[in-house]
Amino acid sequence: MMIHKRAICAAVMLLAGAWPAAAQQLEPGGGIGPDGEYIFNTLLFLLGGILVFWMAAGFAMLEAGLVRARNVTTQLFKNISLFAIAGTMYWLIGYQLMYPGDGWTISGWVGQIFSPAQIEPVASAEPGAPYSAGSDFFFQLMFCATTASIVSGALAERVRVWPFMIFTALLTGLIYPIEASWGWGEGWLDALGFSDFAGSTLVHGAGGAAALAGAIILGPRLGRYRGGRVQAMPGSNLALATLGTFILWMGWFGFNGASQLAIGTINDASDVARVFVNTNAAAAAGVLGAIAASQFIYRRIDLTLVLNGALGGLVSITAEPLFPSIGGAAAIGAVGGVIVVLSVPLLDRMKIDDVVGAIPVHLFAGIWGTLIVPASNPDASYGAQIIGLVAVCGFVFLASLLVWSALRASIGIRAGHEAQITGLDVAEMGMEAYPDFVQAK
Amino acid sequence: MMIHKRAICAAVMLLAGAWPAAAQQLEPGGGIGPDGEYIFNTLLFLLGGILVFWMAAGFAMLEAGLVRARNVTTQLFKNISLFAIAGTMYWLIGYQLMYPGDGWTISGWVGQIFSPAQIEPVASAEPGAPYSAGSDFFFQLMFCATTASIVSGALAERVRVWPFMIFTALLTGLIYPIEASWGWGEGWLDALGFSDFAGSTLVHGAGGAAALAGAIILGPRLGRYRGGRVQAMPGSNLALATLGTFILWMGWFGFNGASQLAIGTINDASDVARVFVNTNAAAAAGVLGAIAASQFIYRRIDLTLVLNGALGGLVSITAEPLFPSIGGAAAIGAVGGVIVVLSVPLLDRMKIDDVVGAIPVHLFAGIWGTLIVPASNPDASYGAQIIGLVAVCGFVFLASLLVWSALRASIGIRAGHEAQITGLDVAEMGMEAYPDFVQAK
Amino acid sequence: MMIHKRAICAAVMLLAGAWPAAAQQLEPGGGIGPDGEYIFNTLLFLLGGILVFWMAAGFAMLEAGLVRARNVTTQLFKNISLFAIAGTMYWLIGYQLMYPGDGWTISGWVGQIFSPAQIEPVASAEPGAPYSAGSDFFFQLMFCATTASIVSGALAERVRVWPFMIFTALLTGLIYPIEASWGWGEGWLDALGFSDFAGSTLVHGAGGAAALAGAIILGPRLGRYRGGRVQAMPGSNLALATLGTFILWMGWFGFNGASQLAIGTINDASDVARVFVNTNAAAAAGVLGAIAASQFIYRRIDLTLVLNGALGGLVSITAEPLFPSIGGAAAIGAVGGVIVVLSVPLLDRMKIDDVVGAIPVHLFAGIWGTLIVPASNPDASYGAQIIGLVAVCGFVFLASLLVWSALRASIGIRAGHEAQITGLDVAEMGMEAYPDFVQAK
Repeated sequence: MMIHKRAICAAVMLLAGAWPAAAQQLEPGGGIGPDGEYIFNTLLFLLGGILVFWMAAGFAMLEAGLVRARNVTTQLFKNISLFAIAGTMYWLIGYQLMYPGDGWTISGWVGQIFSPAQIEPVASAEPGAPYSAGSDFFFQLMFCATTASIVSGALAERVRVWPFMIFTALLTGLIYPIEASWGWGEGWLDALGFSDFAGSTLVHGAGGAAALAGAIILGPRLGRYRGGRVQAMPGSNLALATLGTFILWMGWFGFNGASQLAIGTINDASDVARVFVNTNAAAAAGVLGAIAASQFIYRRIDLTLVLNGALGGLVSITAEPLFPSIGGAAAIGAVGGVIVVLSVPLLDRMKIDDVVGAIPVHLFAGIWGTLIVPASNPDASYGAQIIGLVAVCGFVFLASLLVWSALRASIGIRAGHEAQITGLDVAEMGMEAYPDFVQAK
Repeated sequence: MMIHKRAICAAVMLLAGAWPAAAQQLEPGGGIGPDGEYIFNTLLFLLGGILVFWMAAGFAMLEAGLVRARNVTTQLFKNISLFAIAGTMYWLIGYQLMYPGDGWTISGWVGQIFSPAQIEPVASAEPGAPYSAGSDFFFQLMFCATTASIVSGALAERVRVWPFMIFTALLTGLIYPIEASWGWGEGWLDALGFSDFAGSTLVHGAGGAAALAGAIILGPRLGRYRGGRVQAMPGSNLALATLGTFILWMGWFGFNGASQLAIGTINDASDVARVFVNTNAAAAAGVLGAIAASQFIYRRIDLTLVLNGALGGLVSITAEPLFPSIGGAAAIGAVGGVIVVLSVPLLDRMKIDDVVGAIPVHLFAGIWGTLIVPASNPDASYGAQIIGLVAVCGFVFLASLLVWSALRASIGIRAGHEAQITGLDVAEMGMEAYPDFVQAK
Repeated sequence: MMIHKRAICAAVMLLAGAWPAAAQQLEPGGGIGPDGEYIFNTLLFLLGGILVFWMAAGFAMLEAGLVRARNVTTQLFKNISLFAIAGTMYWLIGYQLMYPGDGWTISGWVGQIFSPAQIEPVASAEPGAPYSAGSDFFFQLMFCATTASIVSGALAERVRVWPFMIFTALLTGLIYPIEASWGWGEGWLDALGFSDFAGSTLVHGAGGAAALAGAIILGPRLGRYRGGRVQAMPGSNLALATLGTFILWMGWFGFNGASQLAIGTINDASDVARVFVNTNAAAAAGVLGAIAASQFIYRRIDLTLVLNGALGGLVSITAEPLFPSIGGAAAIGAVGGVIVVLSVPLLDRMKIDDVVGAIPVHLFAGIWGTLIVPASNPDASYGAQIIGLVAVCGFVFLASLLVWSALRASIGIRAGHEAQITGLDVAEMGMEAYPDFVQAK
């Protein structure tokens, strides 16, 4: 399964005019001492955590803008409730499950859940530790919430509120922590050499796989594929969708940048800066790639595809934002943007109804980003990347399929026909999002 | 008046599975020297200040989303003008009044207002000082503006613009600085042992008390309590209201986190991280508490109550975000969320018309947060908390009552019937917020 | 041409109650060593860069709110595409052009464009350097994008999408880097003593001049000056416009604050704090100045003028946010706010159609801010300021005039009559921004 490194993307890199170079090591000027490093690293986690928190608002605005007016209240509620659920479940179960500390045994984590010491990660900061445990918990919690945010958009406009909340609790309390532990909790994928800097697979691929499973079990929106044709259901507020995209782009500097996990030495600080530059370059190139692909294929520029192109570029670079040159990062991001444009109609052809394009953006661009890591990172291998992708996305997909199926069989997950026609806002929430404005039929 | 510590909330804390532990002291690794501490602390104030500034935008969006479309321009204007007024009045008068330095005498602060040296706090940074005086001024200014932001929502849809601006000038130049000085300017409440980490009472309770006084003097909106029933007047844009809530949540990390006032040692950095974790846990629990209460009482989930539940959780933890365990913080926040859901109809029953729920969120949850401090903080006492609450909220309420009454008697504060029916945007501002959209009657 | 320093603004400063004082030098407490300075400075650039990135979202919201509903999708697209183009062009060409390193020769920069080493600024961090080169690149890139953002608003509702993108590529790849190099790339204006702390001229004046050239070549919107009268074309969403203003205000703390370029000593940290305080004071005073001028001239408060007043205050202080006292900063900002209110109708009288007021805000307030620098900064001279203003704005204006004329003569820049009536969203983009809402005719 091992493919020779740097084989696939050589042409891409050459086009971009630069080969990737290993991160340069700087001669230290004496350092800043252990306390200084501790404070800087803690600050990085806190600032990064705020920025990733902010992505929850970005998802909320993106999704509220891309659903029809009659489903906006429901979509907003799902976004704020999923964050609250994620924040609570990751604290109660997820964090202990993801970082078991003394090995990966069932009895181990069950014990830890009920151990007050483990429910107190904030107090576990130790002298000599490189950062406050609380700041790490804060940062990791936000990643868990991001995974859940990805799901809500794909299932919009027909999933009911309570089953969605239950799924979110299981995703953030169990499914995400388990697979993330494989890569980031000193698990078996880490031992295998699987390389995923900030989570193209572990967060975005996982969220996309959960969304895909949900979209399949849930079925498309009423009337979406009527008579063999795709019925356009345009988003109600592209200003909000654009705002959401800018928020996500902004938050991604924290998502990728703080995933360096340290900024207390000049080498780490320089690497964080590299990550920022590459993240921005990939997003910009994702926009340009989507513009080009949209103009070429559809003969017009589709704003929602351009927004998703930015996100596709961002997801693509997330697996390895440090090693590529700026040109390499731009090439990776541009391909991500094109992938999104190409795969949105593909899903429709398969009658998988993904309202906001979450699956192309997070799963497909996440796969691309994960696979291209070895082209720039000499420590990565194509084999390990493929194994990691299949294991993580497969596990999350199957687990989600199971949960969604069980929810469908028990309490039901799909809003009825009437509810979909009048809108979930009235049917599920009893509250319109824009009651003062006359809406088109 | 002294009540035995930890008596009231023992059950709450036990349910949450953990007792509060004192903040753990770490062995220092040599420190980073006075210059390093100075820079870190200054950076903390600057970043915290930006985040609290951002809360002004959060209030603007929350309130613009919760008023009817015909009053949005006015609400937006009030939010940006109040910030400008607060920024100016706090500089001209408030800061000197709040931190009198050489004791609390009338002649003292009158002298300081007109002293160029005091109008120049930025230049007063001194060697050995733990942070730049300018950064502290910047941070404190934002708290003053927050207090004013709380008022504008409660009085929406019927208060006229100029009296509101005049009230804001008096609140931010005199009323807030005087009471905040009692707690934070080495005043008598501080000496008494009153404990309010980031301002559940000094900011939120005060803002809520000012809003309550205003709502009483101003009277309810036209038709709000017609025929003994509460007439629903739903907000025009729940997407903006949700955005505003996310912004406030984000800003609160700066509000509470930077109120640690220092991040230049590993102990301070760890404490800031604790504050972040607890703040987030309380907000998340506030959401869940409001969902549960809303579903239980109203048999449906009301999104605006959920948003206010998040804010209620945040206000509750603001008095003491450092000492509680995560479980304790979540319990405090959940109660805050429930308080909001329970007290919104209470105000309506008393015919006090609070358009956005500012009084439940900021005053009632602020009272809860202030009273529960001694349950986790061994240095606090229930007696001092009660005295502080009564003194601060009582003073602000009475002073505001006086100012609003004087304004009513002189220039008038209430928009006329015609103006309320056509909307303040046309009547007061001559400009609609959404002129291109056909509005429902 | 040299005018005696401090002559013009003496009255203004006296009114404000304080004379400017030179930034006070603090006794260092031993410093934090070269590594500590490197990390702090890098962090400043990264945080500042994020905040200036966020201004791109601010411009997008401001402009989307100030155009009519039928042109919102197009305006949103222009804002995200211009950022992507700026990010790419500044990397490919602009950065090398702006910081040529070994002197300002044509052969020099041509060589550097094609040198892989120069396309890799991120890797060029060196021991002893005061900050990571990547972080500087990131920060500078955002300034380049800001210049382009300024243009898009002025030309809204009639410029076609592709010529706008081409202009943006030339502005961000060539025009901006050339003029910015004169002041910030050790160019001739720098040698002359031209002083522009964060870019009242180099960014805002330049953007405003490019917008002015475009507005002249493009002509006004269809029906704007029908029958000798100005036809009101009110913005479709003042909530978004207000949000955009708050975002820009927030981002400006990074724009001005990180332009100190260092925060690794207590003097630099104190100066960054001064910059924050003055930036906020100028913005607040800009709001109050605009309120007063609007009420005085129009007998009502115009929210869009108030928003632009805040921005006018911010642009005004950008040339010198460090030296003025708070009172001086407030005076500078207040005049900026008044300038905006006075000059908006002036442009209309000249039949120059600037949809969002970008030329008053960025060019006119930028001129004021640049000219007033010597009043507080003893190292600046009125002569150099005037020369810099004329050179930069003149160059950008003429270069833009040339580019816009060439685009008009070749591919055409103006949307047709039909397209303007139905809106660019349908005509250019094939996608409405608010399809669910019934729009007024």
